[in-house]
Amino acid sequence: MKATDKKNGRKSLSELIAPYRVDSGKGFRLKDYATAPGNSDGDKDKNGKLLEECSKRLSSLQERLHAEGRWALLLILQGMDASGKDGAIKNVMSGVDPQGVDVSSFKAPAGVEVEHDFLWRCAAVMPRRGRIGIFNRSYYEEVVAVRVYPQFLDNQRLPQSLMGKKIWGERLADIAQYENYLAHNGIVVRKIMLNISREEQKKRLLARVEDPDKMWKFSPDDLRDRQRWPEFMGAYEEAIQATASKAAPWFVVPADDKPFARLTVARIAIDALEGLDLAFPTVAPDKAAAAREAAARLAAESNLGNKAAKKGR
Amino acid sequence: MKATDKKNGRKSLSELIAPYRVDSGKGFRLKDYATAPGNSDGDKDKNGKLLEECSKRLSSLQERLHAEGRWALLLILQGMDASGKDGAIKNVMSGVDPQGVDVSSFKAPAGVEVEHDFLWRCAAVMPRRGRIGIFNRSYYEEVVAVRVYPQFLDNQRLPQSLMGKKIWGERLADIAQYENYLAHNGIVVRKIMLNISREEQKKRLLARVEDPDKMWKFSPDDLRDRQRWPEFMGAYEEAIQATASKAAPWFVVPADDKPFARLTVARIAIDALEGLDLAFPTVAPDKAAAAREAAARLAAESNLGNKAAKKGR
Repeated sequence: MKATDKKNGRKSLSELIAPYRVDSGKGFRLKDYATAPGNSDGDKDKNGKLLEECSKRLSSLQERLHAEGRWALLLILQGMDASGKDGAIKNVMSGVDPQGVDVSSFKAPAGVEVEHDFLWRCAAVMPRRGRIGIFNRSYYEEVVAVRVYPQFLDNQRLPQSLMGKKIWGERLADIAQYENYLAHNGIVVRKIMLNISREEQKKRLLARVEDPDKMWKFSPDDLRDRQRWPEFMGAYEEAIQATASKAAPWFVVPADDKPFARLTVARIAIDALEGLDLAFPTVAPDKAAAAREAAARLAAESNLGNKAAKKGR
Repeated sequence: MKATDKKNGRKSLSELIAPYRVDSGKGFRLKDYATAPGNSDGDKDKNGKLLEECSKRLSSLQERLHAEGRWALLLILQGMDASGKDGAIKNVMSGVDPQGVDVSSFKAPAGVEVEHDFLWRCAAVMPRRGRIGIFNRSYYEEVVAVRVYPQFLDNQRLPQSLMGKKIWGERLADIAQYENYLAHNGIVVRKIMLNISREEQKKRLLARVEDPDKMWKFSPDDLRDRQRWPEFMGAYEEAIQATASKAAPWFVVPADDKPFARLTVARIAIDALEGLDLAFPTVAPDKAAAAREAAARLAAESNLGNKAAKKGR
């Protein structure tokens, strides 16, 4: 075991994810955040094993979240095409009971979606108490993609007088306030930007075209967004500056290394849930006595039940 | 025609509703607002006729709202039991095409409703662009009824740490910010408190029990709320103080006189829509020419069509 690993072994989860955490947007600059982990963090085999452990921990935390039934967790995943959003959801959450997890994927809004206020379709699928909600893209597209392509805003048919330049500042402030509201309602929000480099994206997009099983994921639109890379990064930077808060922090996760990115997403989810001190509800002594009495009747009954069932056949 | 009528005749709609309008909560006190209109405003026959005229105006405005398809109107009706919410909705909106109006009535939240953030069930039914949404009660119950009866808050199963005394201030601020957000999205919010006196409520509740066709509307819960009148008024006062704004004003409407209250609700809706300068979309010259050409084909085609249809029989 290398010295750095030993050091990591002693670090708490909060410390491990601290380098990627943005609690305040003041002075935030995207270029200060790496797209790849440091050498000591990039051990793919080790990270794969750590992710397996994390999945078990997450599964157990989800059970307690559900049993207590007071808090909810919302994980928002954002990032450019091929940054690994789908893979992160699949690999991080696959050990968790799907009954307790709701994944919502937001494509370009259409139909009744654009006829509503921009938070509407996301607000409608907010996780209930006791559940984990995952947004694969989210209302942040409204201040990223829609900002890069003004024709998307035209499609929303807002009144002309409300489509001035200040709309982006208003939307960002509205999002920050909405996430504050969610926190007041027991919905713990964690926002993750999978920070991929332009070079790594190129490799992954080319790999999609070369792999017959992945080609369906490739869209010429991906290249369109790629041409506007600096504008996308600028929009992400402003979004993070305006909406990072203690109650709803951003995490800018190096995404060029898939196992590391997935491990980090898992750690972010675990850290959020562990912060809640979730407990299985305790049963009051009288109710516990009643439960034991009922159990005794159940045990005595079961033989009779079997006999009756056999006679019935 | 009396002098006061002449004077009213010259007043604009905005002026007629100004006495009841609260654009800023600063210094607002509910006791400064009357529960009955002044003598000159209480002519029931005249108000009935004025309401008919208003219904026609509202119907025409709704058509333009729909045709333009950019703005939406949200009318929130609040008030104690028997303050006339149902009657106002029925009488004000009955002349308007029901395809363009969505009425949502919010009873005490239950089931999945209480498992969500408190705005959730209302946010889900926000009016789409081009439509009028009417809330018969709303998220304001969360800072009125729920505030008066703390056991309602316990039912919501929020995390204990979030149920401190500051929850009411947080909820009020969250509501104000949410309504600000709605305004940014082209949803024009108008909030109406039907301000009934305790004496008039007594008369109406007794009348419900005496009338076999109305008895179903009477609930012993109405008396429970009535006993807590001062607390309800206090909660309303604080809600209006915290959430009245230019973008989402409150109207405290004298509700002891039903025809006057309904007329005033109609005027509030008309005033809001007239402020939007709604216009039927203009058709560009080339599209208009194409439409006329198509119409000419349609006119020529119809005889052939009839012949074909007759042959087919």
